[in-house]
Amino acid sequence: MDKEIERQIEDKVKEILSKELDTRIAEALQKKGDYNRAAFIASKGSLDMAYPPLILASAAAAMDIESAIFFTFYGLDILHKKKNKNLKVPPVANPSMPVPMPNILGILPGMTAMATMMMNKWMRDQNVPSIQELLDACIESGVKLIACQMTMDVMGIKREDLIDEIEVGGAATFLEWASGCNITLFI
Amino acid sequence: MDKEIERQIEDKVKEILSKELDTRIAEALQKKGDYNRAAFIASKGSLDMAYPPLILASAAAAMDIESAIFFTFYGLDILHKKKNKNLKVPPVANPSMPVPMPNILGILPGMTAMATMMMNKWMRDQNVPSIQELLDACIESGVKLIACQMTMDVMGIKREDLIDEIEVGGAATFLEWASGCNITLFI
Amino acid sequence: MDKEIERQIEDKVKEILSKELDTRIAEALQKKGDYNRAAFIASKGSLDMAYPPLILASAAAAMDIESAIFFTFYGLDILHKKKNKNLKVPPVANPSMPVPMPNILGILPGMTAMATMMMNKWMRDQNVPSIQELLDACIESGVKLIACQMTMDVMGIKREDLIDEIEVGGAATFLEWASGCNITLFI
Repeated sequence: MDKEIERQIEDKVKEILSKELDTRIAEALQKKGDYNRAAFIASKGSLDMAYPPLILASAAAAMDIESAIFFTFYGLDILHKKKNKNLKVPPVANPSMPVPMPNILGILPGMTAMATMMMNKWMRDQNVPSIQELLDACIESGVKLIACQMTMDVMGIKREDLIDEIEVGGAATFLEWASGCNITLFI
Repeated sequence: MDKEIERQIEDKVKEILSKELDTRIAEALQKKGDYNRAAFIASKGSLDMAYPPLILASAAAAMDIESAIFFTFYGLDILHKKKNKNLKVPPVANPSMPVPMPNILGILPGMTAMATMMMNKWMRDQNVPSIQELLDACIESGVKLIACQMTMDVMGIKREDLIDEIEVGGAATFLEWASGCNITLFI
Repeated sequence: MDKEIERQIEDKVKEILSKELDTRIAEALQKKGDYNRAAFIASKGSLDMAYPPLILASAAAAMDIESAIFFTFYGLDILHKKKNKNLKVPPVANPSMPVPMPNILGILPGMTAMATMMMNKWMRDQNVPSIQELLDACIESGVKLIACQMTMDVMGIKREDLIDEIEVGGAATFLEWASGCNITLFI
């Protein structure tokens, strides 16, 4: 091809690229941005801190955000068939309890049961689903539930102690999922 | 156009694309990367854990990172007109207290007040702004402050109990904001 | 160049771009997606909550995910030369302790030591590396360890109290790193 024509083609291509590229890339990024994924870690086993991962993951599912919850350390209780119906609120070391309680009272036998009963009642009164119902909602809407293998080993928890609808994995399993996410929260 | 010329144009375009595209895309991504947004969840109402979301959001604002804080569960106390001037540090269940205190002493009446007084003094001595001042800094620099509707319902908190400069929303409000963020933290 | 030929070149270039551009952009984004970075905040100094940031960062390193841990508030104990060998588990205010303990017993002198001894034994029995070993693994694999300047000032911690292989920084240092990350967790 004639050198002159070649040069002109090059100029033309660059000119069009200048005009087109930014728009196209912006569109592609926009499209990618629309595709959301979320990764949650549930590390606490108290009743109050069991709610956030389940509420967030089920709300995410309703918004077409694919999500996974990795249950580790005390958070594994949320998947535990015997324990997850009886998660408790500790009435000590939390100066923000809705009904404030001095720690010297909070430690008394029966106080954990009372605080738990109160929180369960408040939740029910406002039609907040129970932990059990939220877990079912997560399962039905396809939230991936991953039990931490290391925690199971360390705490002597067997696969059959946990609900059926889960997979078992490690930190690498979580990180692999989280790598494709824009929302990542440790709860 | 002559088939041969057409083919030559195609080769030329592809050659230029190979050279230009990666650089251009990298630049576009870089530019996008410069545009940061952050989403924080404030879930704790103790004095020590009220600091991180406010410090991070106000520091983010100073770096032109747009951010929002979603106040949920005990974290709602930070927006509570009567409570946010008196957030407290629990002197129990934290083996890392700067002045270590056995739990059997930590539960005694007056110990929460003492631990709180100490932390407030340390912060003041180092010119760390108070919770009130950090909240004002967040408001002035345009940090979005969102109170969790569900928490308000469950804990019987009314709109007028909270400071004016906020909006009220739910998990979906948070997730929608967080979807456009690269930094998301649950505190 | 002849106007007609110029127009034909333009059409041809646009046609080729239409075919090529989306694929190329998708590839570039994919490539970028493969390049992961993670930012962790370690804010707790108890033995149980010292594990997650170190396990996640060392696992990330093994997966070629560059990561940084920002140690703030009580989390600074993990970098403290004298304290990090003796991190403790509080046996109160956690209804999910593997061996459940009423708070009224948990506060008794000696119970923190006992709970800590138990957790250390379970970890050892399952060959989970110690905090010390995990910290070494993080250092060896290039995890950036950042001590929070404000916490050092407030708690009166000197540079020489902390291990050598760290840098000191503030909220802005963390946010700058986190801006380039897809995984960000506050622990």
